[in-house]
Amino acid sequence: MRTNFPFILLAVTAFCGLLQSSATADIKSEAIEYSDGETTLQGHVAFDPNISGKRPGILVIHDWMGVAPYSIGRAEQLAKLGYIAFVADIYGKGVRPKDPAEASALAGKYKSDRALLRRRANAGLQKLAQHPQVDSSKVAAIGYCFGGTSVLELARSGADLRGVVSFHGGLDSPTPADGKNIKAKVLVLHGADDPYETPTDIAAFQEELRAAKVDWQMVYYGDAVHSFTQPHAGNDKSKGAAYQEAADRRSWEAMKDFFAEIFAK
Amino acid sequence: MRTNFPFILLAVTAFCGLLQSSATADIKSEAIEYSDGETTLQGHVAFDPNISGKRPGILVIHDWMGVAPYSIGRAEQLAKLGYIAFVADIYGKGVRPKDPAEASALAGKYKSDRALLRRRANAGLQKLAQHPQVDSSKVAAIGYCFGGTSVLELARSGADLRGVVSFHGGLDSPTPADGKNIKAKVLVLHGADDPYETPTDIAAFQEELRAAKVDWQMVYYGDAVHSFTQPHAGNDKSKGAAYQEAADRRSWEAMKDFFAEIFAK
Repeated sequence: MRTNFPFILLAVTAFCGLLQSSATADIKSEAIEYSDGETTLQGHVAFDPNISGKRPGILVIHDWMGVAPYSIGRAEQLAKLGYIAFVADIYGKGVRPKDPAEASALAGKYKSDRALLRRRANAGLQKLAQHPQVDSSKVAAIGYCFGGTSVLELARSGADLRGVVSFHGGLDSPTPADGKNIKAKVLVLHGADDPYETPTDIAAFQEELRAAKVDWQMVYYGDAVHSFTQPHAGNDKSKGAAYQEAADRRSWEAMKDFFAEIFAK
Repeated sequence: MRTNFPFILLAVTAFCGLLQSSATADIKSEAIEYSDGETTLQGHVAFDPNISGKRPGILVIHDWMGVAPYSIGRAEQLAKLGYIAFVADIYGKGVRPKDPAEASALAGKYKSDRALLRRRANAGLQKLAQHPQVDSSKVAAIGYCFGGTSVLELARSGADLRGVVSFHGGLDSPTPADGKNIKAKVLVLHGADDPYETPTDIAAFQEELRAAKVDWQMVYYGDAVHSFTQPHAGNDKSKGAAYQEAADRRSWEAMKDFFAEIFAK
């Protein structure tokens, strides 16, 4: 008998945990200005300055509230995993909605002007790639709600990404033929009871990717509605948007597995 | 500067890999007889005899070819992960189809007699639980194709399982109200282009789990058809059943994450 099974697991977990925490004690997290033509944007970078060398970069595109604590917190979580994370600003410096009504109007503006949305997302991608520690051959993008829509549009623009991950994002596309431009592998993390994604839109999205021979995966989380990763959405599922702890945790793990695969070589 | 990011990953991978391989050098893998009433069954157990102590048990239910090298190979892979794995025999000792025509007839017999299928699956579960090293509070079941159908029927029978995983299994149920008996968390790994699962059956299955408030997840793998985990299915997707390396690898990782969660405490 060599050893006990639970003991092996504990030992590995403890060892890996030790390495992880020693590498993530101090995250640098700060606002950064950049621009799209005449428009000044203000994104936010997060990384662990104690790690040397180039490493993968992750673009984070915010939900309809813009560059706000939620998206910055996700970037910091990514930084703790060892990535250079950058929250792109789609709306413009100082354009920060105060409430859902303003957020809805702003997100709607960009969702109805996909060319502008793609341009802003690409501006963020370029800013991320300029970070001296980003391995520009290893870049991916994630986004929440409106940000999920945005990373899919970024992929449809033909951006050179290894992968995109949408968390409860909108899947509809006014130009499904643009699926052929997608170079990224696509992972869609979806609340099975999300009332904002119609069966028609989901079917059209899957058909877009199928027709374009994209490498795609889509996970349906049971009993999850829109915003399932967002604690501030509350827990009343009847509103159509609510936090669901298991789906939040599982979707983050799915993203980590996806990154492990796409950045493996 | 503490260290380089890829170096940390390499070090952790090397360390964990070392532990894993030292714990999995010799897998014990052998046939075991048991019974369901008057019917003699012959299953197959696989485990690492070098690990001491109780640990989780995984029931494996075979595809339509019965207890054959493919399912035994999966049990051995599970044994290498540290589990006690047991391939249940649904058909009976010596009842081993020679070709797809015989396999289809046998699988059809059990799919049209769900009570018998449940009884045989439960007989396998009881045999697994009798293994002296199985922690009977930590048992799950996985199955491929016909075996996926079978583990879902096992769950619908009310079996005391932490989880079930279906790999390209049939999802239809003649008695959807039995969803209320399901205690297991459910993970369904599905080829998005599987022609054997109709949209109607998929919708009914999801509605069954939704209505019964089951904890469920379903992953759709793009460009994957039936049998996507089975190299012997070949690679001609136009036949509706074919191997797909990425979906095989990803679905196995999804199963591992699922087990890590359900056996965590």
